[in-house]
Amino acid sequence: MAKVPYRTYLTEEEMPKQWYNIRADMKELPDPLLNPGTLQPLTAPEDLYPVFCEELCKQEMDTKTRYIDIPEEVLEYYKTFRPSPVIRAYNLEKALDTPAKIYFKFEGNNTSGSHKLNAAAAMAYYAKAQGLTSLTTETGAGQWGTALSMACAFFGLDLTVYMVKVSYQQKPFRKAVMETYGAKIIPSPSDTTEVGRAILANNPNTGGSLGCAISEAIEVSMRDDNCRYALGSVMNQVLLHQSIIGLESKIAMEKIDEYPDVVIGCAGGGSNLGGLMAAFMQDKLTGKTNSRFVAVEPASCPSLTRGRYAYDFCDTGRMTPLARMYTLGSDFIPSPNHAGGLRYHGMSPILSKLYHDGYMEAIAVEQNKVFEAATLFAKQEQILPAPESSHAIYGAIQEALKCKESGEAKTILFGLTGTGYFDMQAYTQFNEGTMSDYVPTDADLQSGFNGLPKVD
Amino acid sequence: MAKVPYRTYLTEEEMPKQWYNIRADMKELPDPLLNPGTLQPLTAPEDLYPVFCEELCKQEMDTKTRYIDIPEEVLEYYKTFRPSPVIRAYNLEKALDTPAKIYFKFEGNNTSGSHKLNAAAAMAYYAKAQGLTSLTTETGAGQWGTALSMACAFFGLDLTVYMVKVSYQQKPFRKAVMETYGAKIIPSPSDTTEVGRAILANNPNTGGSLGCAISEAIEVSMRDDNCRYALGSVMNQVLLHQSIIGLESKIAMEKIDEYPDVVIGCAGGGSNLGGLMAAFMQDKLTGKTNSRFVAVEPASCPSLTRGRYAYDFCDTGRMTPLARMYTLGSDFIPSPNHAGGLRYHGMSPILSKLYHDGYMEAIAVEQNKVFEAATLFAKQEQILPAPESSHAIYGAIQEALKCKESGEAKTILFGLTGTGYFDMQAYTQFNEGTMSDYVPTDADLQSGFNGLPKVD
Repeated sequence: MAKVPYRTYLTEEEMPKQWYNIRADMKELPDPLLNPGTLQPLTAPEDLYPVFCEELCKQEMDTKTRYIDIPEEVLEYYKTFRPSPVIRAYNLEKALDTPAKIYFKFEGNNTSGSHKLNAAAAMAYYAKAQGLTSLTTETGAGQWGTALSMACAFFGLDLTVYMVKVSYQQKPFRKAVMETYGAKIIPSPSDTTEVGRAILANNPNTGGSLGCAISEAIEVSMRDDNCRYALGSVMNQVLLHQSIIGLESKIAMEKIDEYPDVVIGCAGGGSNLGGLMAAFMQDKLTGKTNSRFVAVEPASCPSLTRGRYAYDFCDTGRMTPLARMYTLGSDFIPSPNHAGGLRYHGMSPILSKLYHDGYMEAIAVEQNKVFEAATLFAKQEQILPAPESSHAIYGAIQEALKCKESGEAKTILFGLTGTGYFDMQAYTQFNEGTMSDYVPTDADLQSGFNGLPKVD
Repeated sequence: MAKVPYRTYLTEEEMPKQWYNIRADMKELPDPLLNPGTLQPLTAPEDLYPVFCEELCKQEMDTKTRYIDIPEEVLEYYKTFRPSPVIRAYNLEKALDTPAKIYFKFEGNNTSGSHKLNAAAAMAYYAKAQGLTSLTTETGAGQWGTALSMACAFFGLDLTVYMVKVSYQQKPFRKAVMETYGAKIIPSPSDTTEVGRAILANNPNTGGSLGCAISEAIEVSMRDDNCRYALGSVMNQVLLHQSIIGLESKIAMEKIDEYPDVVIGCAGGGSNLGGLMAAFMQDKLTGKTNSRFVAVEPASCPSLTRGRYAYDFCDTGRMTPLARMYTLGSDFIPSPNHAGGLRYHGMSPILSKLYHDGYMEAIAVEQNKVFEAATLFAKQEQILPAPESSHAIYGAIQEALKCKESGEAKTILFGLTGTGYFDMQAYTQFNEGTMSDYVPTDADLQSGFNGLPKVD
C-alpha cells in the first residue's frame, strides 16, 4: 500500500452535512439541568430562551435526534476555513523512535487559532436567523472570543466580549484581533454589571475568572431583548457543533484505511475533546469498537481527575442553571502562574458522564512538561502549538512511548486544537526557565468544594 | 459545471518535484552580479562560495537549466506544510459586487506565517548537505528569521539571526518564536560586528535596516568556515525556490479549469511575487498567454515605482556583490511609521529586469489604504492578513473594482503571503485611527540615489 500522505483533506463533497448528537447513543444520559431558583429539572427548551437562541435551546435539550442538519449558511461558512486536515506526525514518530502511528486533527489553521470557530459559526448564524442584533460572551485565553468576533462580523451581529482581566492584560494582541473584527472588549470583572461590581467590591485586585466573565455576559444579554448570550464550551450544543471535528476525522481516516486505537484531547470545558471523540465514541457505545479515550487536563485545574461529580453552577455569579458535572466549584480560580486556557472550574456534562461511566480516562499534567512536549512538537512537526493543545501532544507522546516499550504499533489520534502565536509570553517563560508548576493541595481544592450547592 | 470549491489543494502526488528557473525563458537576462572590489562581473559560482552554500551559488549563477530537481529531503520537508491551497474569495467578490473571479494562493498557514519557509527549507538542507554546522541571516518583520529558524531546527543547524532593531523592539513575540526553534537573536546594528559598531558610532539611536542587518550577518558568517550566510529575498536562488508557489497555483487552477488574467503580489525584495508569477510568466515569455502582472509596493519604500534601475549593493555595509536592480540606494531606510515588512531598498534583479522590459506593472500604495483592504478581507474571507500581503489584497480589490465598472469577469490571482498575528500593534494603530501615511518627497529619495556606486 502507498505511504499514507502527511496531510489528508476531505473534498467539499465529502464534508459532513450533519452534526452528530452523541446523547442519542449514550446508554445513560447526563442528568438534566436544574433551574437555579427552584432546583427543579428544566424540562423544555423554552426554559432556556431568555439566555440562548431558541434553536440552540432546542439542541441543548435534544437527547434523541442522532443527526442534526447543519444549516446551508453554516456549511458555506465552514468552507471558508474547513475542511481541516488529519496529519500524520511522521517526524514526531521518528524523534520518539516509536512503532506507534501518530495522527492529529489540526483545527488551528484559522484566524481564531482554534476549533472554537466551529461552534461560533452556528451560534452567530442562529442568532441572525432569529432576528437578533447582538450577542455577548466571555473569553479566557481569547480563542473563543476571537472565533465569535469573526462569526459575528461575517453574519452581521454586534458582539460584546467579557475577557478575563488577567488575559486582557497579558494578551493585548488578542484584544486587537477581536477589535479588528468589530467586537467590543471589556475586561472582567468590570463595573458594567451588578455581578462584576459585587466581585470587585469583594476583591478589587482579582484577575477575574471564566465563571465571572460568564456571569457578566449573561447579565448584559438579559437587558436587551435583541441580544442573547453565547457560550464556547461545556454545553451540549457546543459539543454537538464540535462533532464536525470527529466526523471529518473519521472520514479522513477511512480514506487512509486507519482507525484510532486511542483518541486524545486536551480538556478544559470539553468542547474540543467532546467534538473530536464523538464519532469514534459512537462506535464504542454501539459495541463496534473498543478504542480508548483520554482527556488531558492541567494539574493546576484538574476538574476530571480531582473534582467532584456534583451539581454546580456554570458561572461564579450563580445565574446559570445547575449542571451535574465534574467540578472544582464555581468559585475556583486557577493559580495565576497557570498559562493559557483550560481554566474552567467544570467539565461538559456529557464528558463528565462518559468519564463517570468508565468510557473515558483522564490524566493531569504540569505545565513545564506540557511546554516540553510543545517544543519537541514544534521542532518536529513545524507547527507552534497552543499551550492548551500541547496537553494533548503530551498525552500522545506518553502513549507513543508506551508503544515503544511494548512494541505495539497502535494508531493514536489527538486533537491539535490551536496555534500558540498569542501565547509567546508563556513560551518565553518556558525558554527562560522561569515557568513554574503548581499543583493545588487537597486543602486548596476544599474551599471550592465547600461552595458547591446542596442538591444531591 | 460544478461550482468551484473554496479551497483547491493538490495531492502529494500532484506536488511539483522541480523548481522552475525563469531565467531560462527570459529574452534578455538580468545583468550579472559585480565583484564589489573590482566591479567586474562574477563569472563562476566559486566567486560566491565564501558567502553562500556551494549548491546555492550554482543555482544563483545558473541561467540555463529550466527545471531544477527539488532534493528528496526538501520534498519531504515541504509536505509538513505544503501543499498550500488556492482559495476562491467568494465572500470578497460578493462584498465588492464584482463580476471578477478572485483567487488567492494562501502561503501563510505555516508557523513562519509566510511563504518564506519555501526558500528556508532549501537553504538549510543544502547547508546541512555540505557539512556546515551553522547559518547566519537577517530578518526585518520576522517572517524570514522565523522560517529559517524552523528549517534549521528541522535539519539540525545552529542559526544566528540579526533582527532589525526597531522590529526587535516592537515584536518581542517574533523573537520568542525564533528562540523556541533554538535560534540566537541579536538586534541590529549591534556591537558584535565591525559594520555594526561603525553604524552605531555614526548613529547610536538608529532603528536599523535590512541592509545593515545583512552586512552584520555576512560579516559573522565569514569568520567561521563551517558557517554560511542565507538571504530570504532578492537573490535568483530565492526566486527559484519560491517558484513552487506559482507551480502549485498553476496546477491547482488547471484542476478547476481557470487561468489568471492578472497575477498580483506584494513586492519588497520580490521573493513572493517572483515565486507566484514565474510559472505564469513563462507562458507570457513563450507567447502562450498575455496575462498582466502587477507588483504592489508601499508608497513609503517605492523601489520599483520611484527607484533607479542601477547597479547597487545589496547591503548597507557594501560587502555584497553589486546587482543591477531598481533601488532607492543601499542607505535608504523607510520612515519609522512604516508598519510591517517590504522595507528593502532594492528589488530582485529578475523582477527588476522584467519590469524594466515591460512584462510587469507596479503600483505603490499608502498604508492606511492597505489596512482598509486588510480589514475588509479579514471580515469577508475570515483570514487576518499580514500587512505585507495586504498590499496584494489592495491591488486585487482595485482590479476587481475595475471589472465592476467594465463588467468584465476577469480571473484575478493574488498571493496571500502571510498572516498578521504578529502585526497587531499596527492593526491597533489602524483601528484607533493613529496610523499615519508617509510618502517620501523627491528630495527625501535623492540622498539615497546620491549614494549609488558609480558603475554604469
